[in-house]
Amino acid sequence: MRATVLHGPRDIRLDQVPDPVLHRPTDALVRVVAACVCGSDLWGYRGIRDTPQPRRIGHELVGVVEAVGADVRTVRPGDFVIAPFALGDGTCPHCRNGFPTSCTHGVMWGELDHEGLLVDGAQGELVRAPFADANLVATPTFPADELIPSLLTLSDVMGTGHHAAVSARVTTGSTVVVVGDGAVGLCGVLAARRLGADRIVAMSRHPARQAVATKFGATDIVAERGPEGVAAVLELLGGIGADAVLECVGTRESMQQALDTTRPGGFVGYVGVPAGGPELPIAQMFGANLNVAGGVAPVRRYLPGLLSDVLAGEIDPGIVFDLTLPLGSVAEAYAAMDERRAIKTLIRP
Amino acid sequence: MRATVLHGPRDIRLDQVPDPVLHRPTDALVRVVAACVCGSDLWGYRGIRDTPQPRRIGHELVGVVEAVGADVRTVRPGDFVIAPFALGDGTCPHCRNGFPTSCTHGVMWGELDHEGLLVDGAQGELVRAPFADANLVATPTFPADELIPSLLTLSDVMGTGHHAAVSARVTTGSTVVVVGDGAVGLCGVLAARRLGADRIVAMSRHPARQAVATKFGATDIVAERGPEGVAAVLELLGGIGADAVLECVGTRESMQQALDTTRPGGFVGYVGVPAGGPELPIAQMFGANLNVAGGVAPVRRYLPGLLSDVLAGEIDPGIVFDLTLPLGSVAEAYAAMDERRAIKTLIRP
Repeated sequence: MRATVLHGPRDIRLDQVPDPVLHRPTDALVRVVAACVCGSDLWGYRGIRDTPQPRRIGHELVGVVEAVGADVRTVRPGDFVIAPFALGDGTCPHCRNGFPTSCTHGVMWGELDHEGLLVDGAQGELVRAPFADANLVATPTFPADELIPSLLTLSDVMGTGHHAAVSARVTTGSTVVVVGDGAVGLCGVLAARRLGADRIVAMSRHPARQAVATKFGATDIVAERGPEGVAAVLELLGGIGADAVLECVGTRESMQQALDTTRPGGFVGYVGVPAGGPELPIAQMFGANLNVAGGVAPVRRYLPGLLSDVLAGEIDPGIVFDLTLPLGSVAEAYAAMDERRAIKTLIRP
Repeated sequence: MRATVLHGPRDIRLDQVPDPVLHRPTDALVRVVAACVCGSDLWGYRGIRDTPQPRRIGHELVGVVEAVGADVRTVRPGDFVIAPFALGDGTCPHCRNGFPTSCTHGVMWGELDHEGLLVDGAQGELVRAPFADANLVATPTFPADELIPSLLTLSDVMGTGHHAAVSARVTTGSTVVVVGDGAVGLCGVLAARRLGADRIVAMSRHPARQAVATKFGATDIVAERGPEGVAAVLELLGGIGADAVLECVGTRESMQQALDTTRPGGFVGYVGVPAGGPELPIAQMFGANLNVAGGVAPVRRYLPGLLSDVLAGEIDPGIVFDLTLPLGSVAEAYAAMDERRAIKTLIRP
């Protein structure tokens, strides 16, 4: 089959690789219907993270089950399924606590699992899905094609934006700031609105992203960054900062922006993958009771609830995809996101 | 009157100073019945924090109201009152949010207020209490002398231990680790038990402190520190770490100990005053969804609830005081705590 392989900085290729097979009775084989490129895929693409050897890539997918192992109970061949980006065994203490992201047998798409078996990357034609019952979520019926983008966001970005909002304790009446206007930040806006936020300030300087943020429920847009951005947010929020700030970038600057716009006693919910730091300034946090919660999102836990809302037409997170390309154009899919010509690129094998 | 003045490292003196007077109609004058030495007072005493000029010190007190300004409504001369260590105006947005510790007119005992007027330190005979209605809490009747130690803990250490437990989301059935066996850590044990924790591991190598921890409800004691301490805690907690860890020290080592013993998705509730750091390792936090909440405790908010439990005999936090000295022996009060001969020293003027 064909699958995407990162060979090195800006060297992304569609290679011929072996077809996956069922290795364990808990495995399923899934034919990918749609995958996409994640902001975090760009760390390797840009050379910010090393690629010591070529590796399979992509961790967001929806698809159709082709075959299942003997022990699989919850999905069957022909089912349309959504896969979370992080895979757990469903039975370890961390999975039972709701954090499959810390599963003792956990693995991400594109990595070797706990026994050294490859789990295919999502940007390909087929994948072997380990612990299928614990991870794959089937839709009740085969979805209409126009729903595919929104369903695909449940694999990562919508669940991740939701984790930021939940971690920041967004609730009815909250004032919220969202730092980051990538797909996760935009989904964070949508998640905050869904949880009942009263005021949502989106920080963005890109008109196309500002437009999506507004569609998703942002009440205010702040284009400035750094001290000017902080001043603009505080001006909007009565000088005291937000109850909840969603940090959806992962740099020192974005985290500082988040902390500086949180009210005393408020929460930063962070989901931006830390890119070489930042370490958190505890003296500032201590003095103002700034709380920091979040991390790698346990999206599997959120999937059923968000799926209901997508199927009911309550939320439409799929509009974060503003470019769709065939798998054969995966290199262009990366370039478009790298150059910020696209918010998020959907790939159809 | 006589009041304690820190002149420099290990130079603590009882000096003659002017008697306080009512400056504003919202002030009260309070005659100190009991004060004490805080672990954080030792930072200046030990020279870890600079003392560029002599300064009044002490921020925990109970006393009797001697006089009130014309606008004071909730306390009267003759009332026995408990004062929180951080003073707010009671009306600013942060006070209304429950964080008087971030009050726009906030001040600590021993500091100059927003208009440059001295607020007396607690380790003296009399204090001017600003914003008396917002800060002082009167007991329903004049308390028996044996209750004074427990009431005095509500000024800081019991409220602070409680803040650690609340911030760490301790609830019925929680597994808890408490890092730090000072008065705050010990009160954290008591607070965790009061909130319904199922398992409470106290980290302490001092037999006297271990004994108090056990009285307060610790189910396990771990004497090791560093990697051995982490291993011992994980061994006790099924290898997965605690739901809630109370960080009650404030050093890089203690925070690392706390993070390393928190289960994925768990909370560190921290109240240790950061002593020159530590910065928080966000990559570790991100990967395991380790949440960090807390800061300088808004003890005024907790005072009425904890006071009820002290008066009802439900909790007896006062046993953290294992040495009582007259104000004239304040230098010995500091030395005993500095040398860890006393957990916490109570001072009677």
